Amino acid sequence: MPQISKKSSALPASAIRKLAPVSEAAEAAGVKVYHLNVGAPDIKSPECALEAVKAACDRLDHISYSNSAGLMPLRKGLVEKYYKKCGIELDVSEILIDVAGSEAFALAMQVAADPGEEIIVVEPFYTNYNTYAILNDIKLVAVHTNIRNNFDIPGIEEFEKVLTPKTRAVLISNPCNPSGKLFSKEEMIQLGQFCLKHDLFLISDEVYREFCYTEEPHFSAMNLKGLEQHVILVDSVSKRYNLCGVRIGCIASHNKDVIAAALKYAQSRLCPPVLGQYATIGALDTPDSYFAEVREEYIRRRDVTIKALNEIPGVFAPTPLGAFYAVAELPIDDAGEFAKWLLTDFRYNNETVQLTPATAFYADKTIKNQVRIAYVLEVPELEKAMKCIAEALKVYPGRTN
Amino acid sequence: MPQISKKSSALPASAIRKLAPVSEAAEAAGVKVYHLNVGAPDIKSPECALEAVKAACDRLDHISYSNSAGLMPLRKGLVEKYYKKCGIELDVSEILIDVAGSEAFALAMQVAADPGEEIIVVEPFYTNYNTYAILNDIKLVAVHTNIRNNFDIPGIEEFEKVLTPKTRAVLISNPCNPSGKLFSKEEMIQLGQFCLKHDLFLISDEVYREFCYTEEPHFSAMNLKGLEQHVILVDSVSKRYNLCGVRIGCIASHNKDVIAAALKYAQSRLCPPVLGQYATIGALDTPDSYFAEVREEYIRRRDVTIKALNEIPGVFAPTPLGAFYAVAELPIDDAGEFAKWLLTDFRYNNETVQLTPATAFYADKTIKNQVRIAYVLEVPELEKAMKCIAEALKVYPGRTN
Repeated sequence: MPQISKKSSALPASAIRKLAPVSEAAEAAGVKVYHLNVGAPDIKSPECALEAVKAACDRLDHISYSNSAGLMPLRKGLVEKYYKKCGIELDVSEILIDVAGSEAFALAMQVAADPGEEIIVVEPFYTNYNTYAILNDIKLVAVHTNIRNNFDIPGIEEFEKVLTPKTRAVLISNPCNPSGKLFSKEEMIQLGQFCLKHDLFLISDEVYREFCYTEEPHFSAMNLKGLEQHVILVDSVSKRYNLCGVRIGCIASHNKDVIAAALKYAQSRLCPPVLGQYATIGALDTPDSYFAEVREEYIRRRDVTIKALNEIPGVFAPTPLGAFYAVAELPIDDAGEFAKWLLTDFRYNNETVQLTPATAFYADKTIKNQVRIAYVLEVPELEKAMKCIAEALKVYPGRTN
Repeated sequence: MPQISKKSSALPASAIRKLAPVSEAAEAAGVKVYHLNVGAPDIKSPECALEAVKAACDRLDHISYSNSAGLMPLRKGLVEKYYKKCGIELDVSEILIDVAGSEAFALAMQVAADPGEEIIVVEPFYTNYNTYAILNDIKLVAVHTNIRNNFDIPGIEEFEKVLTPKTRAVLISNPCNPSGKLFSKEEMIQLGQFCLKHDLFLISDEVYREFCYTEEPHFSAMNLKGLEQHVILVDSVSKRYNLCGVRIGCIASHNKDVIAAALKYAQSRLCPPVLGQYATIGALDTPDSYFAEVREEYIRRRDVTIKALNEIPGVFAPTPLGAFYAVAELPIDDAGEFAKWLLTDFRYNNETVQLTPATAFYADKTIKNQVRIAYVLEVPELEKAMKCIAEALKVYPGRTN
């Protein structure tokens, strides 16, 4: 019997998705599971998005390939209707439509670094960065941010410390999945100066741009002066329009070599999903009121979540300023064990909660008592989920204090 | 200014898609270009596919992620409604929905071989196999098939000759893109015995299964006895239902390790495009008459193409028995130069043709006088395209005889 490759054997299963079978088993047994584990919001997509798909299905008699870089009306529309409004100036030639943010950051990483080279990330970081790093034999080197310090970015000397001759890029997500950290303009300028000084790419994953809960507008890496050749923007429509399943994102850069290289990768997969591209073309007409309402809803959800968490004895959760995740420190021995136990052993009124252990978001493997909570449910559901967590912590056998 | 990775610089641009800018320039100048370069058929999708998308858009208020392995109704439907009819027995757990055939063979290759290892291909072979081999540092080792011999598979001793301790798999496309070669049951059994003897995976790309022009039914590698742990099926709905743009395919295998490993890769890109999955669920109700009509149409197109080609002095094109491609030998110095010259310099009644040089489909770089023709246009258009080629060959400066 032929053996699968060593690379495949060594690849870790998704930390976010690997509890799915246990969770499905609980649901099959009639248990209500509150899914706080995946950033899959329950909020409606803008109607114009789904209407555009239906119109395309009426107009077209077959669904053919698009250009590998995406449909021109989509690229033009993004530049003129969306990025301009965000204060991001782009030419159509500087944008490449991708199979969601996942492909976008995978391409950005491969364009920036060769096998054996290094990319600096701020930890905690989105766990799939690590998967693509492993697949491409790129080493992620982490700069730590501390939950007790609101996940603020440390001084630039911490980045200098981990810099090596093999460093090719800094990769951030802003607002950050999982911490909810929002980078200030000053922090961005500092990071930019570091990249400029050492000739590094700055890969800025801004897929949660619409989810900022401060008065100041989001400051995009694309607006860093003097870094036009350094910045690679990673974006996605998944969260922005609640279209996670359409699998449309993009990379953008003023650096022509970056886009030309990314296009070669993109050609090998022929084209991004065309029905999703039509959904996105439609979504570009989403009224501003949609974003305002969604933002208010998430602020409500966040506030309920954070308040409830911090009222539980032994729990600490700083208030996130962006995205729709919170990282919480729990009085537990091991977040992986706890998350599994919730699904296999714990029931409160025949309900339980699915969480994601934050372990996979850290390079520092000593951090075992944090979980990521995606506050993507309606407030009454979130309240019940928080109650479940509080009750669970009363009886969890691995409780530490 | 930071430099892009060496790997990105070295990656070849798509042989099939790299003439796109020249072609677009010709079209912008008002020239009619017959696109024989891409396997992008003009045939209608089954109505049930597009109706299913519209119904999903009516039913759902947002488009969320699916399971990384694909929507359960799609996996079940493929097994029960499609594969059963093809005589391929599969369990739902043995199938993983992918982002089209492109992701399917990329996953299959990575699961089968580690960086530095080898996969045997039959040349001419689909050029993107090579792209993914480069990306994963896998070496493709070619067994040659000859245009003058109808691209028939040579004796198994030719496979034995190229076998090394690093060989992990044999990869075929059947029917073959680009040659149109259809593997007989006997050829498949021989190949299977070779894989069994040397413990190799047999990756069988059968995306053109519906396009067979002989009386005998297509013989799938999944039906090779004794090779249940060796065969990895690569499939796609792009061509079968004229849904190239929906980006849905799958891999299937009775080998549980293969599917478990592929799922780990699949989790990192979260899920396949959901609207395309709905299109495919709908497409599973396509009546048999649809396939029969499409098949007859392609036989007409093939016959017109092959007859016209062989009537041109100096041209040789064997009759393909499957897929919708033909490889033709032309009296030219260099197919790359010829294909470009057609777009930049040649006009016949202000029309021209876009072809794909077959060079990229061969590991043997001495073969420079072959082109791949996708006969994906209606007969009257094909006739005009063939006339263009005939006229072009009269005046092409690089003509060799």
